[in-house]
Amino acid sequence: MDLFTYYRSTSSYRVRIALALKGLAFDAIAVNLIRDGGEHRQPDYLSVNPQGRVPSLRLDEGAVIIQSMAIIEYLEELSPEPALLPAGLLARARHRQVAALIGCDIHPLHNVAVLNRLRDMGHDDGDVTAWIGHWITEGFTAVEALIGESGFCFEDVGLADVYLLPQVYAARRFNVDLSAFPRICRVEALASQHPAFRIAHPDAQSDKPE
Amino acid sequence: MDLFTYYRSTSSYRVRIALALKGLAFDAIAVNLIRDGGEHRQPDYLSVNPQGRVPSLRLDEGAVIIQSMAIIEYLEELSPEPALLPAGLLARARHRQVAALIGCDIHPLHNVAVLNRLRDMGHDDGDVTAWIGHWITEGFTAVEALIGESGFCFEDVGLADVYLLPQVYAARRFNVDLSAFPRICRVEALASQHPAFRIAHPDAQSDKPE
Repeated sequence: MDLFTYYRSTSSYRVRIALALKGLAFDAIAVNLIRDGGEHRQPDYLSVNPQGRVPSLRLDEGAVIIQSMAIIEYLEELSPEPALLPAGLLARARHRQVAALIGCDIHPLHNVAVLNRLRDMGHDDGDVTAWIGHWITEGFTAVEALIGESGFCFEDVGLADVYLLPQVYAARRFNVDLSAFPRICRVEALASQHPAFRIAHPDAQSDKPE
Repeated sequence: MDLFTYYRSTSSYRVRIALALKGLAFDAIAVNLIRDGGEHRQPDYLSVNPQGRVPSLRLDEGAVIIQSMAIIEYLEELSPEPALLPAGLLARARHRQVAALIGCDIHPLHNVAVLNRLRDMGHDDGDVTAWIGHWITEGFTAVEALIGESGFCFEDVGLADVYLLPQVYAARRFNVDLSAFPRICRVEALASQHPAFRIAHPDAQSDKPE
C-alpha cells in the first residue's frame, strides 16, 4: 500500500497511527502542501485524489481511498486484529463519536484551506490564532466530558485515541492552552510512550524539514 | 429510541434518512436552535449532549449517542438489513469517503456556529453567502468526480446518499448553483421519489414552523 502523506497533516497522522497500531506495512509518498503552491494541487496528485487533499491510500491493486475516516474504517475491516473498535455496539459508538467530533467539528475548521480563506478575507494572524483556539477549546471541552478517567480515551487504545493525538499535536502547535483538559493530557502522556504513536508522529517522518 | 432533532439541521436530516431506510421507529424530540437563544444551549439539553448540538440518539436503556456518523454506523451494526453499506470492502470505502467528505469538509464549514462566528468577526451577509458557496462548490466538485453515472451515488441507495441529500438541501437553501453537478442533481431527483427520503425531509417534520 502507498500512503500519500504530509508530516504535520492531522489527518495523515491519524492514518499513520492506525497503520502502526495494526502493524501494516506501507510506502509513504510525501505530498508537500507548501512547496510550489502545494503539491496537492498539481495534476499528478489530483489524478490520485480529485479533492486534492491528504491523505490518500493507494491499494496494491491500484484503487485509491481518500478521507481518513473512510481509510481507517477500511483498515479495520481489512485487518480486524488488533482492533481499533471494541466488540460492543455502544462501546464502538463511544469511540466513533469522539472521532467524529474531532474529525468534523474541530479539525476541518483549522485546516490549511480554511486558514488561507480567512487570510484572503482580510484577517491577520491574531484573528486566525483566535479562530483556531476557539474551535479547539470548544471541541475539547466536549471531548473531555466524553472520554474516561483512566488509561487511553476508553482505557484500551482505540479509534478515539487515533483521532485525539493528532488533534492534541495541532493544539500544541498553535499554542492552545490545554490546562483545562486533564483527561486529554493524560491520554497524550500515555500515547507519548506507545511505539505506534511514536513512529507515526510528525517529528518521526522523513518529509519533515531539517 | 428518541431522536433529538431540528427540522432543517443537515446532520439530523441524515439520521432521519438512515432510520427511515432501515424502517426503525423512533420518537422525535424537537430542539429549536433559534428560540430563546437556542434550546441546544440550555442545561437540560447539555445534560443529554455535552457538545450541545443536534442530533443525539437516546436508546431505550437511556444511553445517548451523539454525532451523526457515530449514530449511523451504530444503526448499521444494530440493524444490518436493509444495509446502508454494501458487502465489499472497497465498495464500503467508496460510500464512506463521500460521507466523510461531506460530513467533514463541507457541512461543518457552514453550520450555525461557524456562520455566527463569522458574523461576530464583522462579516456581512454577502461575505457569509460567499463563504458557504465556496465550500459547497469546492466539495461538490470532488463529490461529482467520486460518484457513479447512474442510479443513486453508487447505483443502489446507501450511506453516500444519506449524506448527499441533506447537503443538497442546504445548497438549495443557500442558493448555491448546482448546474455544474449533473450526477448530484440526478441523485437528488431520484431521492425525491423515494419514501424514506420524503419522510425524513425537513418539510415533513412537525417542528417546521408554519
